[in-house]
Amino acid sequence: MFAAQPKLDFTIKTLSPAKYPSPLLPPFTSDENRILFDTSADAWEKGMRKEYEPVFIELAGSREHLFFEPHTCRAAIVTCGGLCPGLNDVIRAIVMNLWHTYGCRDILGLQWGYEGLIEAYQHKPIQLTPEVVEKIHDLGGSILGSSRGDQNIGSMTDFLENNGVDILFAIGGDGTLHAAHEIAEEVEKRGLKRSIIGIPKTIDNDISFVAKSFGFETAFSTAANAIASAHTEAKAARNGIGLVKLMGRHSGFIAANATLANRDVNFCLIPEADFDLDGENGLFMNIRKRLAKRGHAVIVVAEGAGQKFFEASGETDKSGNVRFGDIGLFLKSKIETYFKEIKAEITIKYIDPSYMIRSVPSIPTDSVFCGFLGQMAVHAGMAGKTDMLVGLWNNMFTHLPIKAAISRRKMINPAQKLWMSVMETTGQTDLKNPS
Amino acid sequence: MFAAQPKLDFTIKTLSPAKYPSPLLPPFTSDENRILFDTSADAWEKGMRKEYEPVFIELAGSREHLFFEPHTCRAAIVTCGGLCPGLNDVIRAIVMNLWHTYGCRDILGLQWGYEGLIEAYQHKPIQLTPEVVEKIHDLGGSILGSSRGDQNIGSMTDFLENNGVDILFAIGGDGTLHAAHEIAEEVEKRGLKRSIIGIPKTIDNDISFVAKSFGFETAFSTAANAIASAHTEAKAARNGIGLVKLMGRHSGFIAANATLANRDVNFCLIPEADFDLDGENGLFMNIRKRLAKRGHAVIVVAEGAGQKFFEASGETDKSGNVRFGDIGLFLKSKIETYFKEIKAEITIKYIDPSYMIRSVPSIPTDSVFCGFLGQMAVHAGMAGKTDMLVGLWNNMFTHLPIKAAISRRKMINPAQKLWMSVMETTGQTDLKNPS
Amino acid sequence: MFAAQPKLDFTIKTLSPAKYPSPLLPPFTSDENRILFDTSADAWEKGMRKEYEPVFIELAGSREHLFFEPHTCRAAIVTCGGLCPGLNDVIRAIVMNLWHTYGCRDILGLQWGYEGLIEAYQHKPIQLTPEVVEKIHDLGGSILGSSRGDQNIGSMTDFLENNGVDILFAIGGDGTLHAAHEIAEEVEKRGLKRSIIGIPKTIDNDISFVAKSFGFETAFSTAANAIASAHTEAKAARNGIGLVKLMGRHSGFIAANATLANRDVNFCLIPEADFDLDGENGLFMNIRKRLAKRGHAVIVVAEGAGQKFFEASGETDKSGNVRFGDIGLFLKSKIETYFKEIKAEITIKYIDPSYMIRSVPSIPTDSVFCGFLGQMAVHAGMAGKTDMLVGLWNNMFTHLPIKAAISRRKMINPAQKLWMSVMETTGQTDLKNPS
Amino acid sequence: MFAAQPKLDFTIKTLSPAKYPSPLLPPFTSDENRILFDTSADAWEKGMRKEYEPVFIELAGSREHLFFEPHTCRAAIVTCGGLCPGLNDVIRAIVMNLWHTYGCRDILGLQWGYEGLIEAYQHKPIQLTPEVVEKIHDLGGSILGSSRGDQNIGSMTDFLENNGVDILFAIGGDGTLHAAHEIAEEVEKRGLKRSIIGIPKTIDNDISFVAKSFGFETAFSTAANAIASAHTEAKAARNGIGLVKLMGRHSGFIAANATLANRDVNFCLIPEADFDLDGENGLFMNIRKRLAKRGHAVIVVAEGAGQKFFEASGETDKSGNVRFGDIGLFLKSKIETYFKEIKAEITIKYIDPSYMIRSVPSIPTDSVFCGFLGQMAVHAGMAGKTDMLVGLWNNMFTHLPIKAAISRRKMINPAQKLWMSVMETTGQTDLKNPS
Repeated sequence: MFAAQPKLDFTIKTLSPAKYPSPLLPPFTSDENRILFDTSADAWEKGMRKEYEPVFIELAGSREHLFFEPHTCRAAIVTCGGLCPGLNDVIRAIVMNLWHTYGCRDILGLQWGYEGLIEAYQHKPIQLTPEVVEKIHDLGGSILGSSRGDQNIGSMTDFLENNGVDILFAIGGDGTLHAAHEIAEEVEKRGLKRSIIGIPKTIDNDISFVAKSFGFETAFSTAANAIASAHTEAKAARNGIGLVKLMGRHSGFIAANATLANRDVNFCLIPEADFDLDGENGLFMNIRKRLAKRGHAVIVVAEGAGQKFFEASGETDKSGNVRFGDIGLFLKSKIETYFKEIKAEITIKYIDPSYMIRSVPSIPTDSVFCGFLGQMAVHAGMAGKTDMLVGLWNNMFTHLPIKAAISRRKMINPAQKLWMSVMETTGQTDLKNPS
Repeated sequence: MFAAQPKLDFTIKTLSPAKYPSPLLPPFTSDENRILFDTSADAWEKGMRKEYEPVFIELAGSREHLFFEPHTCRAAIVTCGGLCPGLNDVIRAIVMNLWHTYGCRDILGLQWGYEGLIEAYQHKPIQLTPEVVEKIHDLGGSILGSSRGDQNIGSMTDFLENNGVDILFAIGGDGTLHAAHEIAEEVEKRGLKRSIIGIPKTIDNDISFVAKSFGFETAFSTAANAIASAHTEAKAARNGIGLVKLMGRHSGFIAANATLANRDVNFCLIPEADFDLDGENGLFMNIRKRLAKRGHAVIVVAEGAGQKFFEASGETDKSGNVRFGDIGLFLKSKIETYFKEIKAEITIKYIDPSYMIRSVPSIPTDSVFCGFLGQMAVHAGMAGKTDMLVGLWNNMFTHLPIKAAISRRKMINPAQKLWMSVMETTGQTDLKNPS
Repeated sequence: MFAAQPKLDFTIKTLSPAKYPSPLLPPFTSDENRILFDTSADAWEKGMRKEYEPVFIELAGSREHLFFEPHTCRAAIVTCGGLCPGLNDVIRAIVMNLWHTYGCRDILGLQWGYEGLIEAYQHKPIQLTPEVVEKIHDLGGSILGSSRGDQNIGSMTDFLENNGVDILFAIGGDGTLHAAHEIAEEVEKRGLKRSIIGIPKTIDNDISFVAKSFGFETAFSTAANAIASAHTEAKAARNGIGLVKLMGRHSGFIAANATLANRDVNFCLIPEADFDLDGENGLFMNIRKRLAKRGHAVIVVAEGAGQKFFEASGETDKSGNVRFGDIGLFLKSKIETYFKEIKAEITIKYIDPSYMIRSVPSIPTDSVFCGFLGQMAVHAGMAGKTDMLVGLWNNMFTHLPIKAAISRRKMINPAQKLWMSVMETTGQTDLKNPS
Repeated sequence: MFAAQPKLDFTIKTLSPAKYPSPLLPPFTSDENRILFDTSADAWEKGMRKEYEPVFIELAGSREHLFFEPHTCRAAIVTCGGLCPGLNDVIRAIVMNLWHTYGCRDILGLQWGYEGLIEAYQHKPIQLTPEVVEKIHDLGGSILGSSRGDQNIGSMTDFLENNGVDILFAIGGDGTLHAAHEIAEEVEKRGLKRSIIGIPKTIDNDISFVAKSFGFETAFSTAANAIASAHTEAKAARNGIGLVKLMGRHSGFIAANATLANRDVNFCLIPEADFDLDGENGLFMNIRKRLAKRGHAVIVVAEGAGQKFFEASGETDKSGNVRFGDIGLFLKSKIETYFKEIKAEITIKYIDPSYMIRSVPSIPTDSVFCGFLGQMAVHAGMAGKTDMLVGLWNNMFTHLPIKAAISRRKMINPAQKLWMSVMETTGQTDLKNPS
C-alpha cells in the first residue's frame, strides 16, 4: 500500500529490567517476533542481493516477563478529542484485561480528556472495575468524557508522578498522541519509570503504518445511510441533488468507503484529489451533464476537500487544528448560484450527519477489533513498553513508536486501487481542467 | 382529545348512481355505517336530554355498488410536497387493490407532483402495474417523484378531462389537499363525473379529525435516534449541550413523541407552548441550572417553535408556506452567546436530521397502516366518493370532506395528557416569565 | 370492531374514601369521564329511541383525590410469564411516575414473577429508584425476572399483608391477571385496603376490550424480518418454500400484521381460520399451484393454528396453558412428505424466531405507549382503584375490571377488514374443502 | 497466523498469449507483483542465510494485456451452495466491472447453481446488464438462485464449450471450488481456452490462505444479535440458560467472533476445542457453578462442535458433506436431563438463527469487500487466469490456485490469540477432563 520505504526508526522503548513473571500461560510473544514492513517479492530479491535493508515492526502480544508488578501497579485511562465509535469498547477491554488477565486492581478513569491530568481542573478520577465497564460497549461516546485542547506537558507529567500512575493509556488522535510522546520524553527526562501507551483514535483512519483505526468501519457504515437518504431525496425531485458532507480533514477514507458501500454516489470529493468547480472538466459542468442524463445526482464531499477555495484564514480550533472552510455549505451555495445563472431549476438537499456518526455504538466488527486493541495495549503496558502505540499491520497487531506513527499522515493515493474503484463506481472523471 | 365539537359538515359527496355491482364479497360497508365524533358519556347524556345533536363520521370500506366500471375506468396517483415515509407503501396499496381487488388495469402514476397534471411540463405518466410496485414498499421516497408549489386548478382539471382520468388519488399535505378540493369543485362545476380522493400526508401529524397520519410513527421513531446521538455527545463533554431540531411547523407531535420514546431530553420546545429565553423562568436560566446539577443537557426543538423571536418576514416558500426563521441555528447561537457572557464554558452540538428522517422507508407499523389507507382510498374512489380524504377515527378508517379536514390544524393541547407527559419526562417547568 | 355488545359489568371498584389531595395540577379526570363502548351511529339512534342501553368505559387519568398518602404508601411491581418487549419500559414508567409525580419513595421490585410473593422462595425484593430504572427501557427482557406457573392466592395475599404493600402492579397475561383478580377478591374478603392494578401483557394482542397491548407492535415488526429471511431463502432455491412459525396461541394478530407489513407471504395460517391440508382446496394443492406459477412460496403459521391436526393431549405447561402440538415442525414434515409422494423436488427452510422476537427492546412506538400505560396505572393505583387493568379504547386510556377483560379472548374475525386484507395481500383463498 | 509453511505450489495458470491491450489506464499489476506468504523477521533472516526458500503469492489487479477481447467475449456467473450475505454484491461487481470497465456486453447469469450448466435441467440463463444488477446489493440471497449437489464435470464443460462461455465465475464453497478445479482441468484436457475463476464463498470463513471470506463479517455481526436475545432470556429466568447454535461445521470463527462482539457468552464451544460434558472439568459441572454464582448462563455452540458425541452415521447431504448430529438440540436435551437428575430447576431457551443469518443483506464492510472481490475476479478473468480464486492476504487481494486453497481447511488454533481472547472474555476454562 505504501510505495516508498520509510526512513524511520521502528524500535520500541522498553523499561527494564522486566523482572516479574507473567501470570499468563504461554505461548508468549517475544520482542524478537517482528514482521516485515514491505512484504513484496521485490524487496526480498533486493534483500538477497544486499541492495536493501528491511524494516521490521515489533509484534504485540503477551510478554513472558513484566516490568510492573500486577497487584501493586496503578494504571490510568484517558480519552481525548472528538467522539469516535468504540471508545467505550477500548476502555472496557483495557479494564477487563488489567483486572481479569493480570490481577491489577487499581485502575483510574481520568475525566474530560487531558484536563483530567491537570490538577487545577479538579476533575476527580473514576475508579474503574469490571462492574463499572461491563455493559459500556453497548453505548456510544466515552464514559470518561473528553475534551479538546492542549494541556501543559509538565503539569500532566506531575500528575503521573504525584499520583503514582505507572501506566497511562492515552486514547486519541494526532494531537493526543503528540502530547503522549512529549509526556513520555518528559517522564524519561525526569528519570521516572512510567509506561505511556497510545491507542490511536482517528475516525478518519489517517494514522500512518496503522492499517485500520477503530471506529472507522462503524463510521463509514453509518455514513452510507446518510448517502442513501441523499439519494432518495435526489431521486424524488426533478433535477434533485443530494449533497452529503462527511468527516475527513486530510484523508478521504470515510467518503471513499461509504461511496463504495452505498454505490449510488455520482461525485465523491476528497482532500487528496484536487478538483475544479468551473470549466469544461469542472464539477458544475459534470453535475449538469449528469442531471441532463439521469435527472438527479448524489455528491459526497469530505470536510477537508476543496480547501483551496477558501482564503487561508490561519484560524485554529482548540485542538490546534486549522479551522477549515465549510466545504459543504460552500458547495451548496455555489451549486445553487451556478444553476440559477444558467436558469436551470434544481432542488438541492444538504445532509451533514457528523454527530449522528461519531456518537453511535460500534458495530460488531469494530467491537471485536477494539477488544483486541485494548488487550494488546495492556500486554504492552505491563511489559514496560512506552512511547508507543498499538497498531495493525498485515493483519497482525503491532507496536509502533508514537513518533514514527505521527510523522506523516495516511492518505488515499489517487493512483491506486481504492480511489480507482471509487472512480469506477461513481463514473466520475478527473474534475480538473487542463492548466 | 378535542374539547369543542366542530360546527362542520361531515357529509361526503358521492357520484351517482352507483350502478355497477362490486366484484368483492360481503360484508360491505354502507354509507349509513357511521361513528360518533364525540364518544363521551357526557355527549350521550346530553343527547338523551336533546341538548346536543351529535356529529357522525362516515366509515370507509368496500361498497356494494360502484360508480365506476372497474375494467374500463382509469385511475391516476400523484404525490406532492416534501418526502414522508410510507409514500411508496400507499402507492403500492392503491395499485394492488385497484388491480387485484377490482380488476382495474389502467393506472397512471403522475410524475413530479402536481406538475404531472400540467401539460406544459410534458411529464409523461408512468403506467403502474403490480410488477412496477411490487417491491417499492422497501424504499423511502416516492417512485413518482414530487414537487412543491401551486399549479393552476383549471389546467389540472383539463388534464383529468382530456386524459379521461376517472379517479385521482392525491397524496399530500395541507396545500395539496386544498388544491384537490378546488379541483373537485371545478370538476363539479364543469359537470364532470370524476372522483377526487385525498390521502393526507403530513409527517407533522397535524391534520384535524385524523388520529394518525402515515409516516408519523416512522418519523418520531427515527428522530429518537438523533436525540440519542445528541445525548451521547452532550454527556461526553463538560457542560455539554445537545440540540436537535425536528420537524413540526405548527404542531409539536414529532418532538413530543420522540421525547417520550427516548426519555433523555431535558427541554422540549414546540410551537404550541410559548417560552422565553431570558429571565428567571426562561430557557437559558433553566439550562444553566441543569448544567450545574448534571453537567449536560439535551434540547429538542420543533422547527415552528419560538417563531416570535423572528421578525415576521412575510416570505413564503414554493408551497406557499410562510418561511420560518431557523430556530435551531438561532438557539445554538443565542445559547453560545449567553454562556460566553456569563463566562461559562460549554460545548454545544447541533443536529438537524431532517432529510435523514423524511427519506427512510416506513417502519412495519406504518407499512400496515399505509396498506389500509390505500385500500380504503380505492374502495372510496370506485364507489364514486369525491372531495374527501381517508382518515382514522377511534381506530376505524373514515371518510372526511377535504374542506372539513383542512379547516383547522391539529395541535398539541398543552393542558392535556401528551404534553403533561412530556413535561414529566423532561422535568421541564413552564418556561414563561410572569408577564 | 366487536359485533355484539358484551353483557358485562364495566364498573370499577375503588377504595374509599379518597381523602388525600393529589399533588398534581389540574385538569383531573373524574370517574364520571367515561366513553361509549359502541360508537356507531346505529347505537346512538337506538339509544335515543330507548331500544338500547349503552355500556360506558371509565377513562384513566389523574384523580383529584388519592386513597393512598404518597409519601407513606408502599408499591410493588411484578412481571410474570414469557418475555414481551416493553416490560422494562412499563416498570420504568411506574417507578418514575410514583417517584417524581407523586413523591412515593417506597417501591419494591418483586423478583421472578409471582414466586416473588411467596415467602418460601426467599426472593428478596429490589428497592426501585429512578437511578435503578433510568436506562432500562433500552434493554429487552425484565429487570425483575419472570416465571411461569400458579402460586397460592392466600400466600400471595399474606405477602401483601405482611409486607405492607399498598399497591400491587401486576404485569402479565391471562393467567397473571386471573390470579391478580383472585388476590383482589381475597384482599377484599380479608377487609384489607390494597389496590391491585393489572397491566395486560400479551404479545399475542388477545386481551378483550383492549385495542392494543404493549410489545405487540415490536413483535410483529420484528417478525416481519423473519419473514423477509424466509422469502430470501425461498426465492434462492428451485421450488423453495420458506416456512415461519410465529407466536399466536389463540389469535393470529402477529401473523396477520407481520404478513401485512412484509407483503411477501403467500399463505398465512391462524387459529381463527380453519384450513385443510389435503383435497382440492387444501394447503398442499395450493402450495403446489403457487410453486408451479412462481417457483417459490412463503408460509406463515401462528403457533395455535391447525391444532385440530393433533390429538388432544390434555397436557398443560407450568402456566396451565394447554400444551400445543408444534404446528411448525408438523407442517414442515407433512409438506416434505407430500412433495416426496408426488415426486416433486422442493427445498423447505424453517424459521422459528420466537425468542429473538420476545427478547428485543421495544420499538419507539411501543416505548411511548408503555410510558403512558405505566403512568395511567400509577394514577389508578394512587386513587385506590383495584381489581382493574389499564386498557386502551378508541385511542383513550381506560380502566377495565380484570374479570371483564379476561372473560373472553380477543380474536381475528375472518369476515372483517384485517383478515380480508391479509387474504388480498397473500392472494390466498379459503383453504377449506367443502364438507 | 499459520505456523508451518505450506509445501504448496502457488503458481497461477494463465492462458496465453495475452494479446489484447487493456482499455484501462495504468498503473497495471504485473504477474511479477507477488508478496511473501510468511512475513516474519525470522523467515527473512533464514532466507538471507539460504536456509529457507520463500513462498510468494501473486497479486490481483488489472493486467496490461488481456487474453480475451472485451467486446466479443462471453462471461457467465454461477452461485452455488447455501446462502451467504454478499452474493448479490459480488454478482453486481462482476457485471459492473465487465460492462463499464472492460466494455463486455455478453454476461450470462446461470440459474440454480451448477444445475445451470447442465442442459438437461433446461434452466435458461439470465442476460445480465447494469440495469438488472443495479440495486441487488441491497438484497439478501442470490438473484441467480442456488442449489446443492454435485453435477457431472464433463456435462458442465460441454455447456461452456457449446455455449461459447469464455470466462466462468464460480461463487461457492469447498465443493463448488473443487468442481471448478475439475472443470478447469477438463477444459485444459480438451485443449479449450476458457478461464475458470473461483470466488470463495464460505460463511464459516474456513478457506485456507484467504484471510477473510465475504459474508463472514455480516454473519458474526448478525449472530451477535441472537446471542443478545439468548442473554436477555437467560437473565429473565431463575437459573436461566440461553443456548445458541451458530454456523461452523469445521471451524468456529463465527462462534468465536460473535462471542467477542457480544461479550455476554459464558461458554463458547467450537469444533477445534474438544470438550467433555460430564466429569469435574466438563461442561455440565461448569454450567452448574456458573448458575450457582450468577443465576444464569449463555452458551454458544458451533454446529460442528462436539461431533464425537454422535455415532458416525456416515450419512452425507446433497453437497457431499457428512451429515452432522444436531449438537444444539443434543445439548439442550442433555442439559435438561442433567439438571433434572440433580433436581435443580432450570429454564433453557434454545435459539437456532441459521437462516436469519444466511439471508440478510451484507453489512457495509462486506459490501465494500465484495465490490473489490468482483473487480479483481474480472481483472483475472480478462487476463486469462484460470483454475484460480481471488483471495486476500496481508490486506492485499491475491490469486490462489484453487487446488492449493482447498487442500486444507482454515481452523482456529486454540493456542493462539483468537481463542485465548475468547477464553478470557467468557471466563471459561478447559472443558476437558484429564484422561
